[in-house]
Amino acid sequence: MSVETKFRRLATDNAPGQEVRLAASGGGWLKGGPIEGRPVDFSHGDVDAHEPTPGAFEAFAAGVEAGASQAYTEYRGAATIRDLLAERLAAFTGAPVDAGEGLIITPGTQGALFLSVASTVAAGDKVAIVTPDYFANRKLVEFLEARIAPVEMDYLGRDTGAGLDLGQLEDAFKAGAKVFLFSNPNNPAGVVYSADEIGQIATLAGRYGATVIVDQLYSRLLYDGEAYTHLRAGAIAADNVITIMGPSKTESLSGYRLGVAFGAPKVIARMEKLQAIVSLRAPGYCQAVLRTWFDEPPGWMAGRVAAHQRIRDDLVGLFRQIKGCAVRPSQAGSYLFPQLPQLSISPAGFVAALRQQAQVIVTPGTEFGPGSDRSVRLNFSQDRAAASAAVERIQALVDRYRG
Amino acid sequence: MSVETKFRRLATDNAPGQEVRLAASGGGWLKGGPIEGRPVDFSHGDVDAHEPTPGAFEAFAAGVEAGASQAYTEYRGAATIRDLLAERLAAFTGAPVDAGEGLIITPGTQGALFLSVASTVAAGDKVAIVTPDYFANRKLVEFLEARIAPVEMDYLGRDTGAGLDLGQLEDAFKAGAKVFLFSNPNNPAGVVYSADEIGQIATLAGRYGATVIVDQLYSRLLYDGEAYTHLRAGAIAADNVITIMGPSKTESLSGYRLGVAFGAPKVIARMEKLQAIVSLRAPGYCQAVLRTWFDEPPGWMAGRVAAHQRIRDDLVGLFRQIKGCAVRPSQAGSYLFPQLPQLSISPAGFVAALRQQAQVIVTPGTEFGPGSDRSVRLNFSQDRAAASAAVERIQALVDRYRG
Repeated sequence: MSVETKFRRLATDNAPGQEVRLAASGGGWLKGGPIEGRPVDFSHGDVDAHEPTPGAFEAFAAGVEAGASQAYTEYRGAATIRDLLAERLAAFTGAPVDAGEGLIITPGTQGALFLSVASTVAAGDKVAIVTPDYFANRKLVEFLEARIAPVEMDYLGRDTGAGLDLGQLEDAFKAGAKVFLFSNPNNPAGVVYSADEIGQIATLAGRYGATVIVDQLYSRLLYDGEAYTHLRAGAIAADNVITIMGPSKTESLSGYRLGVAFGAPKVIARMEKLQAIVSLRAPGYCQAVLRTWFDEPPGWMAGRVAAHQRIRDDLVGLFRQIKGCAVRPSQAGSYLFPQLPQLSISPAGFVAALRQQAQVIVTPGTEFGPGSDRSVRLNFSQDRAAASAAVERIQALVDRYRG
Repeated sequence: MSVETKFRRLATDNAPGQEVRLAASGGGWLKGGPIEGRPVDFSHGDVDAHEPTPGAFEAFAAGVEAGASQAYTEYRGAATIRDLLAERLAAFTGAPVDAGEGLIITPGTQGALFLSVASTVAAGDKVAIVTPDYFANRKLVEFLEARIAPVEMDYLGRDTGAGLDLGQLEDAFKAGAKVFLFSNPNNPAGVVYSADEIGQIATLAGRYGATVIVDQLYSRLLYDGEAYTHLRAGAIAADNVITIMGPSKTESLSGYRLGVAFGAPKVIARMEKLQAIVSLRAPGYCQAVLRTWFDEPPGWMAGRVAAHQRIRDDLVGLFRQIKGCAVRPSQAGSYLFPQLPQLSISPAGFVAALRQQAQVIVTPGTEFGPGSDRSVRLNFSQDRAAASAAVERIQALVDRYRG
């Protein structure tokens, strides 16, 4: 494949954070005037509304103070920090983590995703990917010139579980997929895989010798009454699973660009080799911030979860007032993925209208794979009042453009 | 190519910073005892000996204070910072830089290298690479399953210029190489390409429609009496050149992981698409440190250059005392690449002996391509006295193992 062809497939125009690069369109097709209100960018969380973990900046400053030893770490990250993290991640996920050979610190969870996929997938390989799922998953597979075996998730018609089509997953493995990549909780839908689903994924991976890469970025932000099953703690061979996490949205530490991947030493070793030519290491001084991770002040995480649960409940209530809108409350994480009613304009047009007429930025469902055109993703880690007011403006525009 | 084959070719065991992962060998083959002295790790610079630019930490702290706007920038980096940099980089390199479309901020210059090569090279393509040159250049090409067209550089037999074999470069272009990747000053040899060499590279690139990626990481650390020619300011089409720089060793800011690439908008656009799936963006808060770059206090850079020049002169003098050792003084940057005399043990054995018997870490010449087995690379951005003492220990071990 030529480099031109390859990059045509990697469009980022609608990716979160890139909206500033979209020139305002002529707007002749817009109906009505603007609706005033405080702008809300639901494409990512607002670290001003939900502040970083206490002590994060001080940990960074101590890293700078430490100097050379923190500036130049092993490519897989500073050993003393990996030791701390291995213990905490083992306690959180319920299975041992090998600090020496089974853990790598990466530039964000995006870095961990890229490195893990590029370390397990070659050109022409088949990779099972959930629809809908995080948009970069599909793009990573395409960049590597591998092939996507889509596995559908019917999340809207149920109250628990993700609704993964396990038959399709087995078909993908039968057809030769050696890697299954998914996010849990699912990004964009915010749903959590049931213990039964996770058990069956482990069984199928074992039966077909597949590697499973599970992105658990939001697994700490778990709402009241929800249960979370860690794939790595179940009946899956330790050599067949890579788990990805990071102190990002939940802890509001995205500005430090930190992630981790842990699991199969064989894959972690490859990831480090690749990191050596992709970015050398996660930013040295930033790595020091990981000392605060899973060591937040007592009650801090519970407070953060409660604050997000209130916003979730507000917004779910507002979306439920929209006739013809289907929304499932997130079980974990800070994403909502409502499916809007039929409109008189295209989904892309509606997203543009929200931006131009209502000062509301959302990520179009089309970014997450086929079949989600009518949905939009909102990261509701926002100021509570501003978020509700913004969804009221979405209500008004849905009514204005109703099909 | 299978993923296993691909990763076997990406060994990092001897890469700088990874020495901690090398288990001490049995050592039965070692002659004599240890030579005491303060350990020196010449595989990278010592940011404790040469401290970061004044104000860098404060700029970072201001970035954290700014919050969301600095945590979530465009993938190509914060627009206000790109505006500042474009102006300063244009002044430094002598040709305009387009802040909007022609500049991207990356996680280190390593990030810029990966993104630029992966945005211009596809599997099967031919890439012209200098021998010797930065070890990651070769690995990047191999990871992308492209082919290397080596171009030799005869740097030892001269006082000025890099000694690039321009006939070989033209042959590589004739044979279909569409990309030429090189570092100037050269890493590892510390030599600077002459105005004539740069002019001929520009002419050849134009004649064959090739893209040139030039890594100018060390171009600010230019020693007394040396002249530096910026490729992008010469007779090369702006669409055919990408320049890479970063505030790293010279400014001792490596711990913040920052780099930039600037030039051909078509390539920069691809690099941003790829960054979106590789690491999203250079660490948001760290980007704020770039506000201090090219805006150091008066006299600060001159002092930094003078300090390095003194160490260079000390070490070159010491290497010249070793009978049969060939060394060319660096013209820019903080690398020396002496060629040692014939020894009774292998180059890898000697590097291991230095580590185990003399507490001195150097990077073996074999990392930089074929033909440099007898050379070792030293990053002399170190404490001056410790560096000299360490090279005296190298002298002693050369004598001990002389062939």
